[in-house]
Amino acid sequence: MSKRVIIIGGNAAGLSAASQIKRQDASWDVTVVEKSDEISYASCGIPYFIQGEVTSSDQLFALTTNDLKEKRGIDLKLNHEVRKVLPRENSLVLSSQDKEYKESYDYLVVASGVSPNLHNIDITSRRENSNIFTIKSIKDGINIKNSIEKYDISRVGIIGGGYIALEMVEVFSLLGYNTTLIHRRNQFSKAFEPEVSEHMKDVLKKNNVTLELETKIASVIEKNDNITVRKSDETSLNFDILIVAIGVTPSTKFLKNSGIEYGIKGSIRVNEYLQTNISNIYAAGDVAEAKNIVTKQPTFSPLALKANKEGSITGTNIVKNNVETFPGVLNSSIMKLFDTGVARTGITESEAKSKGYHVKKIRIESNTKPKYYPDSSKVTLFINFDEHNGKLLGGQIIGPLNEVKRIDVLSGMIQSEKTIQDLYHLDLAYAPPFSPVYDPIVLAGRVGKKYVRN
Amino acid sequence: MSKRVIIIGGNAAGLSAASQIKRQDASWDVTVVEKSDEISYASCGIPYFIQGEVTSSDQLFALTTNDLKEKRGIDLKLNHEVRKVLPRENSLVLSSQDKEYKESYDYLVVASGVSPNLHNIDITSRRENSNIFTIKSIKDGINIKNSIEKYDISRVGIIGGGYIALEMVEVFSLLGYNTTLIHRRNQFSKAFEPEVSEHMKDVLKKNNVTLELETKIASVIEKNDNITVRKSDETSLNFDILIVAIGVTPSTKFLKNSGIEYGIKGSIRVNEYLQTNISNIYAAGDVAEAKNIVTKQPTFSPLALKANKEGSITGTNIVKNNVETFPGVLNSSIMKLFDTGVARTGITESEAKSKGYHVKKIRIESNTKPKYYPDSSKVTLFINFDEHNGKLLGGQIIGPLNEVKRIDVLSGMIQSEKTIQDLYHLDLAYAPPFSPVYDPIVLAGRVGKKYVRN
Repeated sequence: MSKRVIIIGGNAAGLSAASQIKRQDASWDVTVVEKSDEISYASCGIPYFIQGEVTSSDQLFALTTNDLKEKRGIDLKLNHEVRKVLPRENSLVLSSQDKEYKESYDYLVVASGVSPNLHNIDITSRRENSNIFTIKSIKDGINIKNSIEKYDISRVGIIGGGYIALEMVEVFSLLGYNTTLIHRRNQFSKAFEPEVSEHMKDVLKKNNVTLELETKIASVIEKNDNITVRKSDETSLNFDILIVAIGVTPSTKFLKNSGIEYGIKGSIRVNEYLQTNISNIYAAGDVAEAKNIVTKQPTFSPLALKANKEGSITGTNIVKNNVETFPGVLNSSIMKLFDTGVARTGITESEAKSKGYHVKKIRIESNTKPKYYPDSSKVTLFINFDEHNGKLLGGQIIGPLNEVKRIDVLSGMIQSEKTIQDLYHLDLAYAPPFSPVYDPIVLAGRVGKKYVRN
Repeated sequence: MSKRVIIIGGNAAGLSAASQIKRQDASWDVTVVEKSDEISYASCGIPYFIQGEVTSSDQLFALTTNDLKEKRGIDLKLNHEVRKVLPRENSLVLSSQDKEYKESYDYLVVASGVSPNLHNIDITSRRENSNIFTIKSIKDGINIKNSIEKYDISRVGIIGGGYIALEMVEVFSLLGYNTTLIHRRNQFSKAFEPEVSEHMKDVLKKNNVTLELETKIASVIEKNDNITVRKSDETSLNFDILIVAIGVTPSTKFLKNSGIEYGIKGSIRVNEYLQTNISNIYAAGDVAEAKNIVTKQPTFSPLALKANKEGSITGTNIVKNNVETFPGVLNSSIMKLFDTGVARTGITESEAKSKGYHVKKIRIESNTKPKYYPDSSKVTLFINFDEHNGKLLGGQIIGPLNEVKRIDVLSGMIQSEKTIQDLYHLDLAYAPPFSPVYDPIVLAGRVGKKYVRN
């Protein structure tokens, strides 16, 4: 029997869910409600658009409205905001152009994503078109790009210590601006091991980025063409453009009083089928809580691959009645920082300690190729494992861009519940242009297995 | 109690064993017997030495005689050949400078490696310094290099269809010679899927390599400055230099009548502790039979990582009495062919069929980066799995050099006995400079899981 599904959010998770439902049963009625006028965009591509590596913002849209409507038979409501969800009557209240109305559903998918945090910072702007930005939509990217083209910009400030902040630092620095990174702690995102954070600082300094670390911001004031960041020590920094990238929060305001249960950091709690506590309401993507595969505990993980897969799995589970599970995440990630790559997976040493593991962290510095081979350089790995049984808990790699994607081998082994000893036994591919005989991952196993107690 | 160990072979496996024994117990008496005067060399580096990428042959030696004798306390007998092994009296017969004598041991390690095959080809040379070469020792590399510097070389022929032949083809082609690859089959080594073989042919043709495939060689005659390869169809090819790289055979002549049991393709049969049928005789490295991790059946796998690990494990097992096992190999390998990388692991579709698997092979063509990101190109994966349960059996990747090392993720998953469905659930690291949201390996899982029957 054909059903009606409403999906809140027109990006990775929402559109993957919508497409999967139509793929499973084209007779179902699928409506995607999106509060902006942008759908299906690659937010990860925004920095590269600002940088000019991606030449047109159009390239960042994977699917057009037409693709969805005509080719996939998905109904789209752009510029529609969800005001309320009323699970008891299986309906929601929508608003568009100041009109409110109700729509009913058989199934609801919440894929409303996240919004950039701003609440910690006291910002006053006295300009109509502010040069203070957060990074979320393609429009943000276009606005930033317009600003740097229109105004006489030389000083760029970026507040934050996570991926987006660091990517924006790279972009503005490569564009030739005086770039300053302001972060409240001495270490970047806690997702990185402290040593990796230090290494990243060196990379930034080498590339002439000014670091303002352990910096508490009292206020930000924009006036005429100047943005003043007042620090709590009463000194201040001045910029022409300021980017605020201090994390994101699940977009769930419209769920207030709906009875839908929340999870960690304001995300929506779901079971392994991505079903909320209300059985015909699912949540997918950045807004949905995930399970950390290592700790089995809830984690907030606003990352693209999770969003895409969860959307697709949600679609299948709605049509076929819970047949596919999502196993969780390792919060695996990778980033380019000038000529250096940084990759991570699983949990850090400090997270492992806080969860009660008897964690051993080893540091491996490996050649990237045999010593005799040209262009052999160094890559550094940190591997965390349980010293009682060797069970792999997490790891990080920092080194030349082309060397750090081997984090994926470690992710696969962690997800397979393998040990540091097992890394030694891996039969990884070797030839001089690609790695030393002992690939850095195998070398980590060779070194690490000595520390396992039994 | 301190024991006496004799190790036959002074390369990866033999020296790893020797070093490991001394590391475990420095009081043991360890003697390495090597028939040539070269030890501890990186035979994988020979092509790059000929090419000039590695500038001095000295760089290809990892350890010097002095390192071994003085620093590690290992006794070395160079230019000593083993004539006979006499297990009943725990001794062997050695010859050096035409003198024969006996040495006794408590433990013996056979790490005698392999020798290039020649027996299939009828070669006649009427020159003192022949320009017909095989590739085994550094001396071979030096002789080839001397030849191309000394003689007026333009036409180079290479016979074979495996890694060494293909690497040599690349080297001579990059050096600017007229290079011809002669192979008896239409497909390169059976280790490659036929589609990968075809792709490799395209790469060779694009780089102006002449292919003489399905070519049976009647004879090879070297006379004055010309080498004539007579084909069985009575036409012939003429070269200035000819490289014969048609595989290798375990070097075991000295074991005749010793009672040591042989395995596949003339290798030495060992148990999981790398012990032969005679309990105080171990075998390690290219000469030792291995278990294929997928099929659990014997395989001949003369690859560097296996040799290094087996040597080390043998050393530990001799001193500590069989405490460490070697789990086997996936015959993982990787090679550079001009700007293209080729990597493989596990078993091919045809091997899987011959072993009775209900194998499904999928072909995935993936972007290497998001479409909008600059320099995104294509990489092709072939994944073999059991269509009854999804169990991964093998895979191959061909594409840009920096993309094919992700074969290691697949190796890890095969070794962990995982399924094609599990590839979909991997949390692999994503950012636009490194991969699409769905990394090619995850994409393979997404496509492949539909074919699993239950």
